[in-house]
Amino acid sequence: MAQRPKSVSGFPEWLPEIRLVEQKWMDTIRRVFESYGFCSVETSSVEELDVLSAKGEIDKEIYVLRRLQADLAASDEARLALHYDLTVPLARYVAQHFAELVFPFKRYQIQRVWRGERPQEGRFREFYQADIDVVAVDQLSLTFDAELPLIAYEALAAIGAGNVQLQVSNRKILDGYLRGLGVADPVAAIRLIDKLDKIGEKKVLEAGLDPRALAIGKIRTPDASFVDQVRALGVSHPLLDQGLEELAFVMKNLNDVPAVADLSIARGFDYYTGSIYEARLVDFMQIGSVCSGGRYDDLAGSFINRKLPGVGISIGLTRLFAKLVGAGVVTGTAKSPTQVLVVYPREELLATCRDVARRLRQRGLRVELYHAPSKLGDQLRYASRKAIPYVWFPPFEAGGKHEVKDLAAQTQTEADPSSWNPA
Amino acid sequence: MAQRPKSVSGFPEWLPEIRLVEQKWMDTIRRVFESYGFCSVETSSVEELDVLSAKGEIDKEIYVLRRLQADLAASDEARLALHYDLTVPLARYVAQHFAELVFPFKRYQIQRVWRGERPQEGRFREFYQADIDVVAVDQLSLTFDAELPLIAYEALAAIGAGNVQLQVSNRKILDGYLRGLGVADPVAAIRLIDKLDKIGEKKVLEAGLDPRALAIGKIRTPDASFVDQVRALGVSHPLLDQGLEELAFVMKNLNDVPAVADLSIARGFDYYTGSIYEARLVDFMQIGSVCSGGRYDDLAGSFINRKLPGVGISIGLTRLFAKLVGAGVVTGTAKSPTQVLVVYPREELLATCRDVARRLRQRGLRVELYHAPSKLGDQLRYASRKAIPYVWFPPFEAGGKHEVKDLAAQTQTEADPSSWNPA
Repeated sequence: MAQRPKSVSGFPEWLPEIRLVEQKWMDTIRRVFESYGFCSVETSSVEELDVLSAKGEIDKEIYVLRRLQADLAASDEARLALHYDLTVPLARYVAQHFAELVFPFKRYQIQRVWRGERPQEGRFREFYQADIDVVAVDQLSLTFDAELPLIAYEALAAIGAGNVQLQVSNRKILDGYLRGLGVADPVAAIRLIDKLDKIGEKKVLEAGLDPRALAIGKIRTPDASFVDQVRALGVSHPLLDQGLEELAFVMKNLNDVPAVADLSIARGFDYYTGSIYEARLVDFMQIGSVCSGGRYDDLAGSFINRKLPGVGISIGLTRLFAKLVGAGVVTGTAKSPTQVLVVYPREELLATCRDVARRLRQRGLRVELYHAPSKLGDQLRYASRKAIPYVWFPPFEAGGKHEVKDLAAQTQTEADPSSWNPA
Repeated sequence: MAQRPKSVSGFPEWLPEIRLVEQKWMDTIRRVFESYGFCSVETSSVEELDVLSAKGEIDKEIYVLRRLQADLAASDEARLALHYDLTVPLARYVAQHFAELVFPFKRYQIQRVWRGERPQEGRFREFYQADIDVVAVDQLSLTFDAELPLIAYEALAAIGAGNVQLQVSNRKILDGYLRGLGVADPVAAIRLIDKLDKIGEKKVLEAGLDPRALAIGKIRTPDASFVDQVRALGVSHPLLDQGLEELAFVMKNLNDVPAVADLSIARGFDYYTGSIYEARLVDFMQIGSVCSGGRYDDLAGSFINRKLPGVGISIGLTRLFAKLVGAGVVTGTAKSPTQVLVVYPREELLATCRDVARRLRQRGLRVELYHAPSKLGDQLRYASRKAIPYVWFPPFEAGGKHEVKDLAAQTQTEADPSSWNPA
């Protein structure tokens, strides 16, 4: 009768031991975001299609919802869809609650998003993003342009995936430079520069990139010295000046962390208007950018008649996590959060055993009471299969002592439930 | 141009100050679940329709997904839908990963679910549930029937919504009693008993309930004395005996918490086969049951040829939270997690101010650096609007001292960033 189900391709889920690591990642990212005073926001997973398409044509694959038992003719349900990022929902949320929020509004949002990608491409159709944004009214301080990549850096560094490198640029630099150069189609040129990393110098030149535009795309400096290198190219334009000044400020304020001013990054398809960011894991460069972001002049112009500039960064949490799981870098060990298994040898000891478990829990420990009176060998085997580090033996008779066994060290010692702590 | 967007009805979301409370609730529930050694699982939000309907007709309103840009003719996308609870996904997950899990498998799952309710009914169409279940192979120890309601009780008590009362029963009692009584349609009778609370004695009798069936539905005891009261009704049936024994065991093991054996509860429309649970908030009885659960003989029989009995409880997190927000019981105060705002009075002090913020953060504090050099009055106003409790004044000149202002107490004192802590 039974047909073993499969999970749906593109919708990742994890075994408990891997999920424990994912939880640690999320807790860590949240802790870093909150250490800078950002508040959590969650928006509904569902938006009206009008909201999702308020900025014009939607270039992402969207999942539309329909009620299974709906009367299709009478239904307006087709107007609802799952959000495909957390930026459009943020814009809608800020516009909707404008009068109730304190600006600059600093929020983070760790939530699932959905994209109706074709399954055969092996892309995720449901995944977590961890976004952090600041939105201000009319003016947004440049301080945030330097703070946001620092926060993203700290979050990525803290999850324990090795060394992180930030790449920072400013859209005004390429825009201004190409305008100063008199390039006919700056947008096309920017897209080619953005591809420099992937397809190489020869191909972007073949594709028609002005060789002088190539020169700026090759500038990478670990400090603000990119300014002199750009100046040396002899192009001038007010937008270029502004971009250089802004990026120099950001780089000076990122001097504590491994950041590179990389003028090739352009985030060509996004709506950024100033600072732009990417980050890579030094030991996993092949993964590509693990987070991206930037400044946008006007977040919610389609929803509210106020100018709301913002700056934000998004960590591609599931994508990064899944790659590191796939590479064997993220491996689970414990299959549960349990620190101590209290044995339950005989039925008449239930009250004693339960009491020990309760006392340990009251002290903040995570404790399982074995579920049925049974052979100690079975109970130890259960602990070891779940990689529970300690097994607790309450006194089996009146006047007996408590003992705790460290399964890794294979040592068993006397212990007091009111003071014992795991190593 | 701009048209202020509304949120979609039935898809709740919160302002930051309320979201902070929701986060605390979730953290608390998670802490309690983990203190008993349950592991976190998240399943994909999306299941194949075949999976969702594996147990037969789906009586819940389901949202089916369709790619907006899909070629409808060629598409198999209509086979995907959002999950409407966390039990069917658990069954699918356990069946799918059967060989990789350690049994008894103890997991909790705090996740959104979706139901395509008609918006005008004011029901939620997207909401969080917090589920905790144990699944075993072939046999599941009765210990868990007593542990699960205890865990749910602790979680509900810990979120701070006042006194909680558990109501516990066992399906075998009503089933056995009605069979022993020779009632023609036990299922119909159980449904009527289940409604006793809502529509009253007179109406269930009018609807055809056997008066002798009414007698058992009126039994409520705070201990195991219900056994004698049932016996006194003079009906006997092996299933009744078994149910009484199981419920007596559960009640004896719940003697530390306010639990009532309430033989009227029946969870008539669910698939429970033994213990059944509900819980109410004593100060908000009108909300009705805030969590429910029970034991099921065979969780995943439609997916795997193994008998997997389980017992679980689900807290209707969003429903409960929204009711208490609506009743004014849950109110937000702070609009961010920030503990300290470090002022930034003049541009040349940026390095100093940033350094203080960093040092406080390194000690685990949540700290905002004010975003632009400006009047202290503006900065204090910002802190007070966000209900940030402390404002930090770094030395404004060489040799000066650090001071911290407690905004509630309106006191300002000297402080050392390497040792100061909030009260």
